[in-house]
Amino acid sequence: MKPTAILLLHCPDKQGIISEVTKFITDNKGNIVYLDQYVDREDGMFFMRIEWELENFLIPRDKIDDFITTLYAQRYGMEFNLYFNDEKPRMAIFVSKMSHCLYDLLARYKAGEWNVDIPCIVSNHEDLRYVADQFDIPYYVWSIKKDHSNVDEVEKAEMELLEKEKVTSIVLARYMQIITDNMIKAYPNKIINIHHSFLPAFKGAKPYHQAWERGVKIIGATSHYVTADLDAGPIIEQDVARITHKDTPESLVLKGKDLEKIVLSRAVTKHIERKILTYHNKTVIFS
Amino acid sequence: MKPTAILLLHCPDKQGIISEVTKFITDNKGNIVYLDQYVDREDGMFFMRIEWELENFLIPRDKIDDFITTLYAQRYGMEFNLYFNDEKPRMAIFVSKMSHCLYDLLARYKAGEWNVDIPCIVSNHEDLRYVADQFDIPYYVWSIKKDHSNVDEVEKAEMELLEKEKVTSIVLARYMQIITDNMIKAYPNKIINIHHSFLPAFKGAKPYHQAWERGVKIIGATSHYVTADLDAGPIIEQDVARITHKDTPESLVLKGKDLEKIVLSRAVTKHIERKILTYHNKTVIFS
Amino acid sequence: MKPTAILLLHCPDKQGIISEVTKFITDNKGNIVYLDQYVDREDGMFFMRIEWELENFLIPRDKIDDFITTLYAQRYGMEFNLYFNDEKPRMAIFVSKMSHCLYDLLARYKAGEWNVDIPCIVSNHEDLRYVADQFDIPYYVWSIKKDHSNVDEVEKAEMELLEKEKVTSIVLARYMQIITDNMIKAYPNKIINIHHSFLPAFKGAKPYHQAWERGVKIIGATSHYVTADLDAGPIIEQDVARITHKDTPESLVLKGKDLEKIVLSRAVTKHIERKILTYHNKTVIFS
Amino acid sequence: MKPTAILLLHCPDKQGIISEVTKFITDNKGNIVYLDQYVDREDGMFFMRIEWELENFLIPRDKIDDFITTLYAQRYGMEFNLYFNDEKPRMAIFVSKMSHCLYDLLARYKAGEWNVDIPCIVSNHEDLRYVADQFDIPYYVWSIKKDHSNVDEVEKAEMELLEKEKVTSIVLARYMQIITDNMIKAYPNKIINIHHSFLPAFKGAKPYHQAWERGVKIIGATSHYVTADLDAGPIIEQDVARITHKDTPESLVLKGKDLEKIVLSRAVTKHIERKILTYHNKTVIFS
Repeated sequence: MKPTAILLLHCPDKQGIISEVTKFITDNKGNIVYLDQYVDREDGMFFMRIEWELENFLIPRDKIDDFITTLYAQRYGMEFNLYFNDEKPRMAIFVSKMSHCLYDLLARYKAGEWNVDIPCIVSNHEDLRYVADQFDIPYYVWSIKKDHSNVDEVEKAEMELLEKEKVTSIVLARYMQIITDNMIKAYPNKIINIHHSFLPAFKGAKPYHQAWERGVKIIGATSHYVTADLDAGPIIEQDVARITHKDTPESLVLKGKDLEKIVLSRAVTKHIERKILTYHNKTVIFS
Repeated sequence: MKPTAILLLHCPDKQGIISEVTKFITDNKGNIVYLDQYVDREDGMFFMRIEWELENFLIPRDKIDDFITTLYAQRYGMEFNLYFNDEKPRMAIFVSKMSHCLYDLLARYKAGEWNVDIPCIVSNHEDLRYVADQFDIPYYVWSIKKDHSNVDEVEKAEMELLEKEKVTSIVLARYMQIITDNMIKAYPNKIINIHHSFLPAFKGAKPYHQAWERGVKIIGATSHYVTADLDAGPIIEQDVARITHKDTPESLVLKGKDLEKIVLSRAVTKHIERKILTYHNKTVIFS
Repeated sequence: MKPTAILLLHCPDKQGIISEVTKFITDNKGNIVYLDQYVDREDGMFFMRIEWELENFLIPRDKIDDFITTLYAQRYGMEFNLYFNDEKPRMAIFVSKMSHCLYDLLARYKAGEWNVDIPCIVSNHEDLRYVADQFDIPYYVWSIKKDHSNVDEVEKAEMELLEKEKVTSIVLARYMQIITDNMIKAYPNKIINIHHSFLPAFKGAKPYHQAWERGVKIIGATSHYVTADLDAGPIIEQDVARITHKDTPESLVLKGKDLEKIVLSRAVTKHIERKILTYHNKTVIFS
Repeated sequence: MKPTAILLLHCPDKQGIISEVTKFITDNKGNIVYLDQYVDREDGMFFMRIEWELENFLIPRDKIDDFITTLYAQRYGMEFNLYFNDEKPRMAIFVSKMSHCLYDLLARYKAGEWNVDIPCIVSNHEDLRYVADQFDIPYYVWSIKKDHSNVDEVEKAEMELLEKEKVTSIVLARYMQIITDNMIKAYPNKIINIHHSFLPAFKGAKPYHQAWERGVKIIGATSHYVTADLDAGPIIEQDVARITHKDTPESLVLKGKDLEKIVLSRAVTKHIERKILTYHNKTVIFS
């Protein structure tokens, strides 16, 4: 894997942006290995993901951000993020009692599918410690009291852990607790949740029971970034499965598990690959 | 096509129902060509569809209903419907301005795919008269005033037409008007609507715009029986299509058209084949 | 609809192509309304579709081809096609006896979904003349003898018609005759077929029966450009439907019809929109 | 979980079979908790799965087989299998080097989703021993020489293990070795394989490369029972995923992994639940 820089940007659409940015990179001997762009003609916004090899690139990697800021960001009203493929995201996983998403994430991690580090697993229950042990990953438990009286305290402890472990993203793998606003602010568009319904249908608790009550013929799962508004953040990925009148709430839960883990893992893959741009509570997903 | 009787029934589940009903048919020389049953163990309800050839059946067809009522319905607390495959449903189609569902229905009708008669098309606009003309089907227009002041009058005229034409089912093929309660009462579980969203998400007006606003990654269409509660009747069929951030409200409308017509036609097929049982605002769909 | 130019090109990948081409357009006051590109890193090939408004474009439309040839084509080893959105494709439809694809195509055409002209329908049977009549499109029949002795004669007549009608593309809407090599040569990557299987499985005759024999759990349909090699041309679009052991060859044929018409129409849409590039017997489909 | 008996049967279709069998069970105080049946009208064959609680059943469980044989099997030309839900299948897993299917199977097993025992994992490579160790399951390795000269010896050792462990079914979780005819004969319709293509397309080696070469727009995975004929046994389950021209053979392998593990696990679920009947190289899958 050769070192590359990855630039994700958006700005008001103007003639010549692609041409300028690609010229800047090629003039400085950067070999472009990925370019995808998209114009939202409704909003007049331009979105781009571009990746180039750093090997012969004339600008040192710690100056690239400055150059882009100076040359383009102000001029074009551009917002951008710069990543390097050899700086792995550090991802914490939050779980409660169900193991299917956790196993799916860890199996991919262990198989080397993902360019990521997973330094810790956090839970509000002891139940899944054995899974963390199987994969030799530290497991931390902070129980939240029924009256929620210790939420601030728990949040403080969790935030300290995340800071200590230099965590850059959080995956909620069927974590059944509300995330506090402080944590959401600390990780904007960096907390990925899996909701076990086809959002916006069946928000909140027990979506499979809601689906069964309504008599739908298809169930779904939705992965999204967490915002202050419950189950209403930018959607990253969704998928569905066909059901029939023969299904019970219990069989929906079972069928849903497969949806949840695959949808969550697809979203995490895109996140790790730096292929998601968020804008106006929606996502642009580069291919 | 040999003449058959089709019995759709449901009742509280009890030992021996299948055995009794099948014995009754075979003892009377009926050749069973279809049997499917389902037990809802949650509610303790039994559902069955059974179809048999009338050729050597010992009970005359106009007495079968009586026999079933006397022998089983009271004893088992059974509700049932009896149909004969040579008595075609007579289906009215209601449309507004979009032609895609109408063409899809009529193309199947003309190709002889369905055991049905379509004696009339009803609309609140002149727009699709040319389609009705292409297929030589009478087209009736009753405009509804913006202030809805003539709704009763229009309903009366429509009901007279439906009665005159001996209509037994109604298909709303993107008909953009509320159906009145009287009509719903006259056609219980016999009015099939297509809603252009994955219900219960995006009820009501402009669902594709709602979907685009929310940034979903999958859109859907839902066919259901019309009840007094808007977009909340028993769901017959749903399907979905994957979309991306590149889609606009306009492209969703286009992609949605294919979903709508296929989902509606699948629902109509099941309805015509007498394969739908409704119960507790849900459907049992026999295969 | 403002007039636009559409450029589809491919060439060996080199630094700076996008930048040069977009600069060329913007420098000449062309407003780019679409740009999508793709690099096949395996083969080192670059593919692009770019569309721009002609309104203020400084180069007259009849000189654009020259300019591109001179400035880029030779230098980059580029192959390209230039289209104008106000020059509609003229599409002939070939049919045999089944109406579902034909109705689906004509319903879209009549509803104005497609920027296309359909000057004629060609068949080897009289069966579907009534459909052509419903839509007021000339219908031509040339029967092919069982011994194929009149194939050359038929081909000659058909080619004359196509030439007279200035046909630029052909859609085989379940046309059950082999297309001759001469016609394929005259319309390279311009004849779209629908095959009623998930190619490359079940090539040739009676694919639904083959699928039923094999006991597959999913059936498919495939739309592809016709080449001299039967059912082996570049695939444009495929889709599938789930089936069960309860399906018969007859029910597969029915279910398949919906697949066939939707898959064919999606392929035709992409073709009309000039969003398909073929290369090495594969397609690049722009979004 | 109350003890139940599960009867899977098929025989030439005759009037009254359901009625007789259900009467037999209910007369003997068996409470039927599941009944599904299917008639193949092409072949005139009847298929049924029926399950009933043993609690008050008058016939002792070790006599049920006799009774069915005597009362029905001979009279109706019936073939049947009788299972008890408290007699768990004992399943061996065979693997080579890829972990995704193995992890998926073991995660379900560990979570208690399946009524099964997994006494051993067999491989031709050491690579996945760490996974077996994580789940505390014995891992056996028999390497097969390139010239296949030790195949008989390996088979003998494996068969001894399977016998010792009372294995009743085998799951090939991406096991990249041919299964010998002796083993197939010893486990008829009890060896489940996952093939990484949409069979019958792309049999044999490197199906993702074949799919990429052909330029298909959809890839698939197929789970089937192993027979002497390579990749041609009765298909249990298939699923597909949409791909584009942007995919490479490598990205197909990655996308395919998710398909493979889900399709294999669905097949294994049906197998464990005794919901699969095989007939004429096809499967009847009860819901």
